[in-house]
Amino acid sequence: MTKRVREILGYYDSENAGVRSNLARMLNHGKLAGTGKFVILPVDQGFEHGPARSFAVNPPAYDPRYHFQLAIDAGCNAYAAPLGFLEAGVAEYAGEIPLILKANNHDVLNEEKDPALAVTASVKDALRLGCAAIGLTIYPGSTQEKSMYQEAREIGEEAKAHGLPLVLWSYPRGSGVSKQGETALDVVAYAAQIAGQLGANMIKVKPPTAFIEQAEAKKAYDANKVPLEPFSARIKHVMQSAFDGRRIVIFSGGAKETDDSLLNTVRGIQAGGGYGSIIGRNSFQRPKPEAIALLGKVIDIYKG
Amino acid sequence: MTKRVREILGYYDSENAGVRSNLARMLNHGKLAGTGKFVILPVDQGFEHGPARSFAVNPPAYDPRYHFQLAIDAGCNAYAAPLGFLEAGVAEYAGEIPLILKANNHDVLNEEKDPALAVTASVKDALRLGCAAIGLTIYPGSTQEKSMYQEAREIGEEAKAHGLPLVLWSYPRGSGVSKQGETALDVVAYAAQIAGQLGANMIKVKPPTAFIEQAEAKKAYDANKVPLEPFSARIKHVMQSAFDGRRIVIFSGGAKETDDSLLNTVRGIQAGGGYGSIIGRNSFQRPKPEAIALLGKVIDIYKG
Amino acid sequence: MTKRVREILGYYDSENAGVRSNLARMLNHGKLAGTGKFVILPVDQGFEHGPARSFAVNPPAYDPRYHFQLAIDAGCNAYAAPLGFLEAGVAEYAGEIPLILKANNHDVLNEEKDPALAVTASVKDALRLGCAAIGLTIYPGSTQEKSMYQEAREIGEEAKAHGLPLVLWSYPRGSGVSKQGETALDVVAYAAQIAGQLGANMIKVKPPTAFIEQAEAKKAYDANKVPLEPFSARIKHVMQSAFDGRRIVIFSGGAKETDDSLLNTVRGIQAGGGYGSIIGRNSFQRPKPEAIALLGKVIDIYKG
Amino acid sequence: MTKRVREILGYYDSENAGVRSNLARMLNHGKLAGTGKFVILPVDQGFEHGPARSFAVNPPAYDPRYHFQLAIDAGCNAYAAPLGFLEAGVAEYAGEIPLILKANNHDVLNEEKDPALAVTASVKDALRLGCAAIGLTIYPGSTQEKSMYQEAREIGEEAKAHGLPLVLWSYPRGSGVSKQGETALDVVAYAAQIAGQLGANMIKVKPPTAFIEQAEAKKAYDANKVPLEPFSARIKHVMQSAFDGRRIVIFSGGAKETDDSLLNTVRGIQAGGGYGSIIGRNSFQRPKPEAIALLGKVIDIYKG
Amino acid sequence: MTKRVREILGYYDSENAGVRSNLARMLNHGKLAGTGKFVILPVDQGFEHGPARSFAVNPPAYDPRYHFQLAIDAGCNAYAAPLGFLEAGVAEYAGEIPLILKANNHDVLNEEKDPALAVTASVKDALRLGCAAIGLTIYPGSTQEKSMYQEAREIGEEAKAHGLPLVLWSYPRGSGVSKQGETALDVVAYAAQIAGQLGANMIKVKPPTAFIEQAEAKKAYDANKVPLEPFSARIKHVMQSAFDGRRIVIFSGGAKETDDSLLNTVRGIQAGGGYGSIIGRNSFQRPKPEAIALLGKVIDIYKG
Repeated sequence: MTKRVREILGYYDSENAGVRSNLARMLNHGKLAGTGKFVILPVDQGFEHGPARSFAVNPPAYDPRYHFQLAIDAGCNAYAAPLGFLEAGVAEYAGEIPLILKANNHDVLNEEKDPALAVTASVKDALRLGCAAIGLTIYPGSTQEKSMYQEAREIGEEAKAHGLPLVLWSYPRGSGVSKQGETALDVVAYAAQIAGQLGANMIKVKPPTAFIEQAEAKKAYDANKVPLEPFSARIKHVMQSAFDGRRIVIFSGGAKETDDSLLNTVRGIQAGGGYGSIIGRNSFQRPKPEAIALLGKVIDIYKG
Repeated sequence: MTKRVREILGYYDSENAGVRSNLARMLNHGKLAGTGKFVILPVDQGFEHGPARSFAVNPPAYDPRYHFQLAIDAGCNAYAAPLGFLEAGVAEYAGEIPLILKANNHDVLNEEKDPALAVTASVKDALRLGCAAIGLTIYPGSTQEKSMYQEAREIGEEAKAHGLPLVLWSYPRGSGVSKQGETALDVVAYAAQIAGQLGANMIKVKPPTAFIEQAEAKKAYDANKVPLEPFSARIKHVMQSAFDGRRIVIFSGGAKETDDSLLNTVRGIQAGGGYGSIIGRNSFQRPKPEAIALLGKVIDIYKG
Repeated sequence: MTKRVREILGYYDSENAGVRSNLARMLNHGKLAGTGKFVILPVDQGFEHGPARSFAVNPPAYDPRYHFQLAIDAGCNAYAAPLGFLEAGVAEYAGEIPLILKANNHDVLNEEKDPALAVTASVKDALRLGCAAIGLTIYPGSTQEKSMYQEAREIGEEAKAHGLPLVLWSYPRGSGVSKQGETALDVVAYAAQIAGQLGANMIKVKPPTAFIEQAEAKKAYDANKVPLEPFSARIKHVMQSAFDGRRIVIFSGGAKETDDSLLNTVRGIQAGGGYGSIIGRNSFQRPKPEAIALLGKVIDIYKG
Repeated sequence: MTKRVREILGYYDSENAGVRSNLARMLNHGKLAGTGKFVILPVDQGFEHGPARSFAVNPPAYDPRYHFQLAIDAGCNAYAAPLGFLEAGVAEYAGEIPLILKANNHDVLNEEKDPALAVTASVKDALRLGCAAIGLTIYPGSTQEKSMYQEAREIGEEAKAHGLPLVLWSYPRGSGVSKQGETALDVVAYAAQIAGQLGANMIKVKPPTAFIEQAEAKKAYDANKVPLEPFSARIKHVMQSAFDGRRIVIFSGGAKETDDSLLNTVRGIQAGGGYGSIIGRNSFQRPKPEAIALLGKVIDIYKG
Repeated sequence: MTKRVREILGYYDSENAGVRSNLARMLNHGKLAGTGKFVILPVDQGFEHGPARSFAVNPPAYDPRYHFQLAIDAGCNAYAAPLGFLEAGVAEYAGEIPLILKANNHDVLNEEKDPALAVTASVKDALRLGCAAIGLTIYPGSTQEKSMYQEAREIGEEAKAHGLPLVLWSYPRGSGVSKQGETALDVVAYAAQIAGQLGANMIKVKPPTAFIEQAEAKKAYDANKVPLEPFSARIKHVMQSAFDGRRIVIFSGGAKETDDSLLNTVRGIQAGGGYGSIIGRNSFQRPKPEAIALLGKVIDIYKG
C-alpha cells in the first residue's frame, strides 16, 4: 500500500475497518491504483434520462455488460450503476472491478421543480452483489431535501455498520437555487460540506463555475478574498469545504463535451487537489476505442 | 464532586444514572469543572450557513480537527457538532473532551419561511462516537413545529433510555413570530419552557431583548411588572421559565461581535443566574490565540 | 370501596382490570375519595400559553414541584401535566398523588386557524413515571381533526392494553366552529360524544353556554324541547351525550374568574350530574392559601 | 406519606418513579399502611401442591374470589397469585387491593430433584390486570438455577422499565443443598443476597434455622461470631445480607402450624427488623373468621 | 491526556470512539489517572460466595453504598459489581467513579464440577446505569465453556456497538483443568489469549504459578526455554500471551492474604509489565482505613 493511500485511509480512522478496506479496494484498483486518484464510470443515465437519450448514439451500450467491460478495459477504479444494470452483469464480472450500487434514482417522466429520489436498492443488495460502496444522490435546495438527507443518513448508518462506504452525489436543485446557481462556487462548496456532514465517505459534486449564488455568501467570499479564478482555485476551495481535503471528492463530467474541454477540466481538478473524475456520458456515448483513449488521457493527467 | 454539581444533578433525580453521569461528565470537564457553569463550543455553521461563510475568515477551521483542539485548549465543557465533523476527528480525540452530537440540521440552500430540520444522526451514532449527549434544534413558531417536537420527543426518549441527556436548541422562527420577535423576552422564555416540557435536560436559547412580541403576553408582563431591564433581569426571567432554574439553560452567542459586547452579555448571563454560554462564531472565526484569550475571559466571568 | 365507586367502575366493565384499577386510584384519592366526584389540577398552561402568562402572577408556580404539592395539599384526585413538568418533580413525589401524563401539546407561538397538537410523550413514559392515566387533547372542528382522532385512538389502544385509562380533552376549535360555537351546547355535547366514541375513559369539556351553533342541530333541540336553561340542564344534556352518564365527564375551568362565578359553575355541574371539575388557572394563579381555600369550597360542593 | 415510607422508597432511588409508585401503593395499603411493614396473602398452592392439598380443608377457598376478599377483609398490603386465579376474580375486585402476579410456577406432578419453574404469565399480563408488582420464584442450588436467574433478570428488566417492581421468592432447593440446608441461616441469607443482586425490589425467603449448611460459610460464621440465636438475630443477619436492610424482605409462613408458633415467628421477624410476612396456608386453610383473627394478631405485632 | 494513555488507546484503534472514550474514562480516573495502570475494586463475592463469607468480617460492607465510597476514597480507577449492588447505590454516586457492570454470576449453592454462569444483567442496564464497561466471567476448561464463550461474544458485540468496552474475567476451571492447573502459567496465559481472541478489551486473570499443567504445552515451554521464575517473568509471559501487551490485563487478588504477600505480588505485576490489580477481598474485608492504606501502597507501586 502506498504512502498516499495510507494517508487517505487515515482520514477515515473513525470508520470501521470494513469501510476502510472497501475504500482501499477502490484506491488500489485500475490504472490509478496507489495514486490516491479516481476515475469512476457511472451509468445511471438510462434511469435518469431514458434509454434513447443515453444509448442510441452508441447502441452496444444498451447491453449492461458493455459498461462493466468498458470500466475494466479503461482501467477505472470502480463502476457505479443502479440495481438492474448491476444485476444484469455482475454474475459475469464478479471480482473484476469494484462496484458502487447507486441506490436511489429519479426519472424525467415525472420532472418536478422540487424533486426527490426513490430508494431503489438496499444495503443488502449491495452486499449480495459484492459492491465496494453504496451511493445515493441528494438535492440540496429542493423543498424535499429533508427526506433525502434522512434517507442518506439512515442508509449510510446501515451501510457503514456493514462495512460499506457511503458515496453521496450532492447536486443542488429545486426552488432554493437558480439554474445558474446549481454550479455556483458557493453552492457546490456548500453541497460538498453538507454531504460530508451527513457522513459521506466519498462525495460527488459538479465542477464549480465562477458565479456566486447567495448574497450572504458573496459577502464572505468578497471580504475574505476567496479567489474565483482560475478554475483550479475553485477546486481548491471545494476541497477545503470538504473537511480541508479530508474527504474524497470526485467531480462529475456532465453533458458530453469536446475532448479538449473535458481534459482541461481534469487538469484543473488535478491542479486544485481534487481526487478525480466520474465520467459517464463522455465515456459510454462514444465508440469504445475512443472512450478508452479519452479515459487514458484523463488517467495520464491524474498520474501526474 | 462539588456541592453545586451535586445540587444540579439533584434537579434531574427522575432521570436514570446514565443521564446523570453524562451530565456530570460535562459539569466536571474543562476550566469550569465543578462550578456548575458551562462554556460549550458548537460548530454546525458549516451545515447551517455553508463553509465559506463559516470558515473563510479563518481557514484552518475548515479542518474538523481544528475544533476539537480549540475546545480542548480553551477549556470548554463540551464540543457540539454534526455527524460528519465528529466522525472526521473523533478517532484522534476519543476521551479528551465530552461531545454532543448535533443530530438534526438545516441548510440555507432551501430557506423556507417555515423551516423544518432533517434528522441527520441517530442515538446509536452518539453511543458509538462516545458522546456525552445528543442535541436537536426545534423551531417553535414554524408551521412545521409539530414534526420537530415529535422528533425531539422520540429521539429524546430513546437517548435517555440509553443514558444520554437530551439537549434542545430552542430557536423560535417561522410564520408565528416576527424577525424582532425571535429574540423577544416573552418568546425566548416561552422557547425555554417548551424545551423543558419536551423533556430536554439542557436548553439552548438566544439572549433575550427587551421587546415583547405577543399581545396576550404583554398584558401579563405589564400586570405583573416583570422587569425588562437590565439584561440580567431578562436572564433571570428566562431561568424562572426554565422550571425555576431547575433545568440547565445555556445562552447562544449569535453572530460575530466585539469582545466588549460579548463579554457584557456574559456578565449579564452570570448576574441573572444563567448556566453559561455556547459560543461558536465568536470562537472559531478568530485566529486561535484570540479565540482562546476571549474564551478565557468568558470563563473568568463564569468563575465569579 | 364505596357503592358509588363500584357503580362507576361498572360502567367500564369491558375495560381490563388495569384500566379500572387506575380509575379506582383516582376515584379513591384525595378529599373526594369514594364520592365518585373529581377535582383535578391540570398545569399545561406553561406549554399552551407560555410561562409568563401562566406563572408571573404567582411566581412560586414556576417551580414544577409547586404543583405536585398544591394538588396534594388541596386534596385533588389527580394532577395532570406534560412530560417535562412531571419529570422535574416525580422523583420527589412518587406515589403521593395519581398523575395524568398530558401527552400532546400545542403552543401559541404558532397559532393557526386549524391547529393540531404535537405528541410530546409516550405510553412508556406514563408507565415509567408511575402515572394513573394518559391524556390527550383533540380539536373537533379543525381541518386537522383526523390526525388528532387517529393519534388519540392509537395511543389510547396502546395505553389501555397496558392498563392506563385514556383521558381526552375535547375542545372544539378551527374552521368548523365559530368562536361562540366553541362552547355552544350542541358543540360541547357533540365533543363529549366524539371523545366517548374514540374510546375515552374520562372526558374533559368546557361548560356549555345556551347557544346552539349548528342549524341542523338547532332543529333537533327545538323539536324535542331540549332545555337550554338553567345551566344545570345543559350539564345534564352533556352527561346524556356522554353515553347517558356512563362516561366520566369533567368540566374545565378556563380563564381566571371570580370565586362566586366559579363556585356557581361548580354548583351547576353538581346539580346537573357532572363528575367534577378540572381547575388550573383558577388554582395556580392565586397565592397557595387562597387556592386551597377555593378548591376546598369546590370540594365541599361536590361532597354534596 | 409517612417518614418511614419515604425512607424505604429512598432505598430505591435508582428505580424509576413507576416502580417507586407501585411500591408505595403496597406500603400505603391495608391495616399496615404507612408503617413500612407488610402482610401479604399468597395463593399459588393450587398450582404448586394441587387443589385438594390446598383447599379441601376449607372448601370455600376453591373459589378464586375467596382469596381477594380474604386479603381485603384481613387488611393485607397485597394479594399474590398465578395468572388464572387473578383472571378469575380481578374484574370484581379491580382497584380494591394491590395485586402481585406470580409469573412462574412449578407443580409436583413432575417433581425433579433439580426443578425449574415454567414462566406462566407476562409483564403485559400484569399491566392489563392492574397489578402493583410481578413475582417470580428462583431455586438457588438447583442445577437449573441458571435458567431461572436469567428469566428473573429478563422479566425484571422489562417489568421495571414499565414501572412494575420485581418480587423474587428465593427458595433454595436441588442437588446443591440438603433438605435441612434449605432453611439454614447461611443458605437463607445467601438466597436473599442473590435475589437482591438479580435486581429484586422485594425478596421473599423462608425463616432461617440455626443450622449452617456450607462448610466454607461455617468458618466465616464462627470466625466472626455471627450469632445463630435467638431467632431475631438470624432475621437481623438476613436483613444485613439484603443490602443492610435496604431491600424489602418478607418472610414466608410455610406449612400450617399452630397460632402460637406462627406468632412467635412474627415477633422474631419484627424484633430482627424484617419487613413482614407472607402468609398463605396459615390463612386460607382455616375458616375465614379464624384466618382474619390470626392475621389481625400478626398485624398488631407489626404495628409495634 | 498522557502519552502512555494515548499509546494504550492506540492498541484499540479498531474499536469505535465510544469504546475508546470509556477506556479513557477509566485510564484517566483516580490516583493512577494518566499512568496507564489500574487498581479496580470488584465486589461480586456476595453473589459468588455468599454474604457472610464476604462481609461478616467487616459488617459495614453489607451496605452497597460502602463499596462506592471505598473505591472513591481509595482512588481506584473503577468499581465493578453485579446489577443489584450497582442499582442500590448508583443514584447517590452517579458520575463519581467509572462503573463496570458484572453481567454474569455464579453462586456456590450449586457448585458443579463444570460450572456455567447465569447472565444477570444486560447492555441496556449498563447504559442506563451510566457504566463505563460491561464485564463477564468465562470458565475455560469447563465442559460448558461453549455457552459462556458464546454469551461473551454476543454481549460483547452488542456492548461494543453501543460504545461499551468488554471486560472478561477469564478463570479456568472444570473437568479440563486440575485444581493446581487453574493458576498454572500455561493455563493462565492460555486464558488471557482466549479472552483476547473473544474480543475482550480488558482481561482479568489470576497471578500465574510456576506450574505447567498441559503436557503438550510443557514441551513448548521447555524447548523454548520460557522462564518460569521469577514471578515477574511469568507476568511478562502472560502479557506476551495477551497480544504482546496490546490488551489491558489486570491480575486478581484472590483470597485475603497478608499485606506483604499482596504487595510482593503487585511488585511482580509491575516488574513484569502488567496493567494493574483488581483487589476485592483484600480491600473490603478490612476496616476501611486499613483498606485505604493498603490500596495506597499498591497505587504507589504502580506509580513506579
